Amino acid sequence: VTVYLVGAGPGDPDLITRRGAAILARADYVVIDRLVDRRLLADVPCDSIIVEVGKVPGQPELSWAQDDISEMLIALGRTGVTVVRLKGGDPFVFGRGGEELRALRNAGVAVEVVPGLSSAFAVPALSGIPVTSRGLSSQVTVVSGHDPSAVEWRHLGPGDRTIVFLMGSAHSAVLAQCLIDEGWPPHTDVAITESGSWASERRTHTSIAGLLTEAVRSPAVIVVGAVAALVDRAYVSAGVDGLGTVSALVD
Amino acid sequence: VTVYLVGAGPGDPDLITRRGAAILARADYVVIDRLVDRRLLADVPCDSIIVEVGKVPGQPELSWAQDDISEMLIALGRTGVTVVRLKGGDPFVFGRGGEELRALRNAGVAVEVVPGLSSAFAVPALSGIPVTSRGLSSQVTVVSGHDPSAVEWRHLGPGDRTIVFLMGSAHSAVLAQCLIDEGWPPHTDVAITESGSWASERRTHTSIAGLLTEAVRSPAVIVVGAVAALVDRAYVSAGVDGLGTVSALVD
Repeated sequence: VTVYLVGAGPGDPDLITRRGAAILARADYVVIDRLVDRRLLADVPCDSIIVEVGKVPGQPELSWAQDDISEMLIALGRTGVTVVRLKGGDPFVFGRGGEELRALRNAGVAVEVVPGLSSAFAVPALSGIPVTSRGLSSQVTVVSGHDPSAVEWRHLGPGDRTIVFLMGSAHSAVLAQCLIDEGWPPHTDVAITESGSWASERRTHTSIAGLLTEAVRSPAVIVVGAVAALVDRAYVSAGVDGLGTVSALVD
Repeated sequence: VTVYLVGAGPGDPDLITRRGAAILARADYVVIDRLVDRRLLADVPCDSIIVEVGKVPGQPELSWAQDDISEMLIALGRTGVTVVRLKGGDPFVFGRGGEELRALRNAGVAVEVVPGLSSAFAVPALSGIPVTSRGLSSQVTVVSGHDPSAVEWRHLGPGDRTIVFLMGSAHSAVLAQCLIDEGWPPHTDVAITESGSWASERRTHTSIAGLLTEAVRSPAVIVVGAVAALVDRAYVSAGVDGLGTVSALVD
């Protein structure tokens, strides 16, 4: 294997898997998106090369095309060096890891997948929210809120269920309105965790009606449904950088 | 903190988080379900006490009530020893970790949650299946197949989406029929991974129609939707016990 697709988890470097950490510790090249927590790179060999892809810093109109990222991974992989493609959360949950895996395999490059904790489940858990719970939620759906017009809303009607939006901060009011249009009661519980497992973590407990006007900062995980009421305002997860504090709790 | 609710991930001991592993290495008591892979206990101190709960071996009619497990965790936590409640996958995705967290907190016992890789996402990933993928699936729903009559099927209609059933092996034919009743085409792709990330891992690529007659062994993750066609019959995940083989591949 020369290319490893590794999930970093939500941010806290202790929430990467043992296998992911072991592979990072012998990487020649590490290819990262800008969102990846830099603390994760602490154990990377000091002579390895970090390649940042995605949006170009300071020039928001410029960003890497997915095909170009895949091509670079193929080119690196063919040299025989150890390449780690490190992605926040899980590469296979709205992470385009599937596209990179297929491109690499089609090019004949040996790849290994090392899953990571998806923020969709791990960030709520660190706030005390189980995405499923007997009597409250019997199914959980994870959706990207990046483009509300692309969401198949007909599947997202009300019930004993949980809906988790990733990448929904820019359009949170639209997401709330679409949920109301699908029949969700406006008083339904909503929990928002911004910067989950980072030092700047911030938890908000509100409702779908409240989400219509709440300003949400990226990165955010938005949980909709009865389990969102379980958000624990006092509970401080280990993920919060060992600081023992959560910066702000709003109820 | 005295009680840690730790997710073990799908089975391979290298797929636990660094934090989970570090806590296990200093546990006084480890409380486990029978499904947890015993390889995970390799780093537990040799003088720590392993308490097995859940079904009673050899007496399938006997099993622990959830309240009794919670009471035992509270009793252990009050002694001040370090207690690890280790659960396969993620404790908060059909794992009843939420119930144990609430019981412990209501009893005044300090708890920390350490999420684990949910089999719902990690087992497909190890088989080369991204649960979401541009153009194929824009949302993913995770459901327990343990009791098909308790599932809110109306949310599970056909679309550009993925449905993942956990604990569905005993009722796989009923699950398939319910999907057809909801309007899914019978030729829709289905991927079944039995014993994901264990040495006995077995992957099957079939259809909803095929699932009507397929015998599925527990534990199994059943993926429904276009992404299931991406199951990689050749790809051997590191999770497969370092053996470099998958025991059987059926297409």
